[in-house]
Amino acid sequence: MTVIQTQIRSGVYYDSAKLMQLQRQLSDLPGIQDAGVVMGTESNKELLSHIGLVSPEMQSAKPDDLVIIVKADDEKAAETALSRVDELLAARKSTLDQEYLPHSIEAAAQMLPGASWVLVSVAGRYAAGVARDALRLGKHVFLFSDNVSVEDEIDLKQKARELGLLVMGPDCGTAMIGGAGLGFANKIRRGPIGVVAAAGTGLQQVTSRIHQLGSGITHGIGTGGRDLSEKVGAITFLMGLDVFVRDPDTKVIVLVSKPPAPKVAEEVIKVARKAGKPVVISFVGRAVTTRQDGNLYFATGMDDAASLAVELANHPPKLETDNELNLNRFAAGQKFFRGLFSGGTLAYEAQHILADYVPKVWANAPINKENKLPNSMVSQEHCIVDLGEDEFTVGRLHPMMDNELRIRRLMEEANDPTVAVIMLDVVIGYGSHPDPASELAPAIAEAIANARKAGRHLEVVCVVTGTDEDPQNFDSQIRQLKQAGAFVDASNEVVVRRAGRILRALAESGSETGITGTPVNLDTLKKPLEAINVGLESFAENLKAQGVPTVHVDWKPVAGGNEKLASILERMKKQS
Amino acid sequence: MTVIQTQIRSGVYYDSAKLMQLQRQLSDLPGIQDAGVVMGTESNKELLSHIGLVSPEMQSAKPDDLVIIVKADDEKAAETALSRVDELLAARKSTLDQEYLPHSIEAAAQMLPGASWVLVSVAGRYAAGVARDALRLGKHVFLFSDNVSVEDEIDLKQKARELGLLVMGPDCGTAMIGGAGLGFANKIRRGPIGVVAAAGTGLQQVTSRIHQLGSGITHGIGTGGRDLSEKVGAITFLMGLDVFVRDPDTKVIVLVSKPPAPKVAEEVIKVARKAGKPVVISFVGRAVTTRQDGNLYFATGMDDAASLAVELANHPPKLETDNELNLNRFAAGQKFFRGLFSGGTLAYEAQHILADYVPKVWANAPINKENKLPNSMVSQEHCIVDLGEDEFTVGRLHPMMDNELRIRRLMEEANDPTVAVIMLDVVIGYGSHPDPASELAPAIAEAIANARKAGRHLEVVCVVTGTDEDPQNFDSQIRQLKQAGAFVDASNEVVVRRAGRILRALAESGSETGITGTPVNLDTLKKPLEAINVGLESFAENLKAQGVPTVHVDWKPVAGGNEKLASILERMKKQS
Repeated sequence: MTVIQTQIRSGVYYDSAKLMQLQRQLSDLPGIQDAGVVMGTESNKELLSHIGLVSPEMQSAKPDDLVIIVKADDEKAAETALSRVDELLAARKSTLDQEYLPHSIEAAAQMLPGASWVLVSVAGRYAAGVARDALRLGKHVFLFSDNVSVEDEIDLKQKARELGLLVMGPDCGTAMIGGAGLGFANKIRRGPIGVVAAAGTGLQQVTSRIHQLGSGITHGIGTGGRDLSEKVGAITFLMGLDVFVRDPDTKVIVLVSKPPAPKVAEEVIKVARKAGKPVVISFVGRAVTTRQDGNLYFATGMDDAASLAVELANHPPKLETDNELNLNRFAAGQKFFRGLFSGGTLAYEAQHILADYVPKVWANAPINKENKLPNSMVSQEHCIVDLGEDEFTVGRLHPMMDNELRIRRLMEEANDPTVAVIMLDVVIGYGSHPDPASELAPAIAEAIANARKAGRHLEVVCVVTGTDEDPQNFDSQIRQLKQAGAFVDASNEVVVRRAGRILRALAESGSETGITGTPVNLDTLKKPLEAINVGLESFAENLKAQGVPTVHVDWKPVAGGNEKLASILERMKKQS
Repeated sequence: MTVIQTQIRSGVYYDSAKLMQLQRQLSDLPGIQDAGVVMGTESNKELLSHIGLVSPEMQSAKPDDLVIIVKADDEKAAETALSRVDELLAARKSTLDQEYLPHSIEAAAQMLPGASWVLVSVAGRYAAGVARDALRLGKHVFLFSDNVSVEDEIDLKQKARELGLLVMGPDCGTAMIGGAGLGFANKIRRGPIGVVAAAGTGLQQVTSRIHQLGSGITHGIGTGGRDLSEKVGAITFLMGLDVFVRDPDTKVIVLVSKPPAPKVAEEVIKVARKAGKPVVISFVGRAVTTRQDGNLYFATGMDDAASLAVELANHPPKLETDNELNLNRFAAGQKFFRGLFSGGTLAYEAQHILADYVPKVWANAPINKENKLPNSMVSQEHCIVDLGEDEFTVGRLHPMMDNELRIRRLMEEANDPTVAVIMLDVVIGYGSHPDPASELAPAIAEAIANARKAGRHLEVVCVVTGTDEDPQNFDSQIRQLKQAGAFVDASNEVVVRRAGRILRALAESGSETGITGTPVNLDTLKKPLEAINVGLESFAENLKAQGVPTVHVDWKPVAGGNEKLASILERMKKQS
């Protein structure tokens, strides 16, 4: 008959690799069917129950207790197995056993003074304390541990930012620094692409694909999956981005994230726009509205991000800058967009595209109801009026046939000193006015002249929809509008994006977004990696296998895991 | 001193071109500063007030009244102008004046028996009646008029569907049939691309871009902007799509829409998936999650749609079909997906991608809270479990290091007769298990064998993340997993999309979506266009300019615009 026996141990600490090893060894003993060796958290107890390893002692174990439970053929086999626990825990094989292992980070730092990095993978409740020790010693922290509170995360990252140090994590699975992998990391060719990732396997997947496509990376900076939450506010992510902006070896930057807080994602994108290098963005769940916006390239997924980055690294694009927009022509207070459309779809697409550039666009035919323009006759802020909507065309010709209403409105908008850009669509072809530009162009010229007299620059942008076989003469329409001073293109998207870039640049002029805190010293990333490891021994072994000088700390929780005593000691250390 | 005088006329009908012409002529008379000639709707009165053409008479005009209002230098000029209204209305110049004009569609149809098309652009309140007449005569309807009720639209389109006739509109600005433009239309080269558009200027913009890129179209079928609303349910849009599916000259189909009702958009996409031809989709405001899904290509905007279509027309792709999925291997009842992930980002991306294929995916770490798996230990329906989440890793090795928990769960899921596809990610590199496939592959083989014994096919799909320089031997990992019977790829997206295609095909098998009603007779689109025009004379003139045999109907509202009498006559006609 199957029996289950349990052993509970309090106030002990072993790393999870050792627990797993013990569990396997117990399972392999004669007469043992299954074994579990875990800390007594609720979810671990649920897991054990789920696989039939359940007992009253196990049920009453506390999160700090070590639960050792075996299912055996008979009582004797169970007892024999449990009696061997101490012996099995004592016997272990590690390449590290041959070395002297220091018992503190301080001691390790003295043994390896060139180490700029500390890897922390101790149990979550001890991790923040270890990370603080590392920061005090001026080291970057790779914080693999999970189950760390968000308050600790914020505190650590704010401290680190002041010091110019990176805190990657908590729950940071992966980083690749100067060719060496930290935590879970692939062997990736060195190359011109820098990757920042709030996404552990995301970093692995993107960099593996970059390698598979024949290119490589400078560094892969992990941040932990919570970095782009509203609370943390992308502290490490923005520092990582800043590293790659300043690093001359990085030619293309890739930003990867698990689903980010939308506000934080937009903030990061705003900073990325100033990078002066191509930046590929792959944020899971963020809708892609355009493939490219200036130096930004938006990927539909991680594979796509890798392909885009390699393509950009192999064929560096000429980046457009805001200089060509001549923003200094505009007067103070000019900031708004007025779209006067005759084509409904063009007006909808314009709303959709402008959402990439400005926070809100009012419209008489809005995509989202909350943007409904209260009075179609009166513009406000950024706004798009479709003059082909039913409300304007009862017993009245469509604006593609008759320009009168649109010209009246154009002159009104042009006199508004808050208006910077006016957009018109000029749709030719059968049915349309026989020569719309002959009426619109003089009005545009007059509107621009009026604004100039009042000390302003009015940007008028026009999309011309039509073909060279249309009755109106396509080229002549374009020429007339250009001669009147308008920016003209046959692509609605090109025209709207130009307007959007002007509006965004006007809104942002004067509000420089800089990195707060101390910039990371690039030399600490550039010089060959040396590291201190606290926690999982396998991480130290991996670093050594990569030829990275590493000191493993034979770490035990302060005060033997007694939380109360440990927190007193921590407070004393903080005040010193 | 400026004076304003007003004339109100009741029970009269003129088309809007004539009203606009009168307004211009009045404005040009001596001493007249401005003039307005409009029907007395609220928005027209507001427009007039807005430009300073306001009077008590104008304010009290009703929607059926014709308002003629002038602003003049003095009373005499105003009076003189208004006294000339009848004379100006009588004098008009039109090429149509030289011809005999029938007074009804019936008479026109007898004059031009080859006409398959009726263009309707009379005032909105009369338009549905005229369109019904056209359908009774077996004609396709191009319904330019706006201000038509959605109830009339649905009624017209349902009738038309039964008859195999197209009702394009109401508020359909544009169509291009067999090289001829209806309404507002550009001159577009003939070519291999068919366009369906719930978007007037959208159709013009996309077809103009196609022309500019050197390609051309078979037809451009407009539907009116409301066709993809929930109420109308894309009746004409689906009929147009069906036309292009059956038309051998159409090699690529483009679908364009103003912001559609999301449910209707997905329904259309579902039908488009069966097209057997490349279909490019550009729905304003619909997020693009992938560039390609089988025969479907998703554009980020209208210009992008045109480029994609031309590219596909010039370089026809080899389309993947569901045949290669061998769906008949699965047993009845197999339909669900179970993702057992070790990598959080891979799991998030999988959720994001699967949303393209199945309605809901549960997850322990969901992108959207409402998809939170109630119990992480127990799968339900489609579901993704990230075994690297904190809940699974307290005092326990990460699943990239230790496969035990994942293998247990794999065997559980494999025994569930509702499960069709199981996905695993295998992330190698430093830190990971030294040879994960050596443990996972035997388990996969066993799971597949168990399912086979139970009469089922279990599809196991794996993404392997890593490089050829990783310590584990990348190729060997892939080989072992493939030998166990798994589908394996290095791209997370490729693997998830394969799973998605299987799930979607299983869900849809047996539920054939066919076109209801009568299919449109392709010959009516293929033969040279002949048309009957009711409403704006300029549309008839434009057709003639394109060499299209056209009869213009000298139409007046039934009963001289008396609505009550008209509706009685209409009801009598219906019953006859």
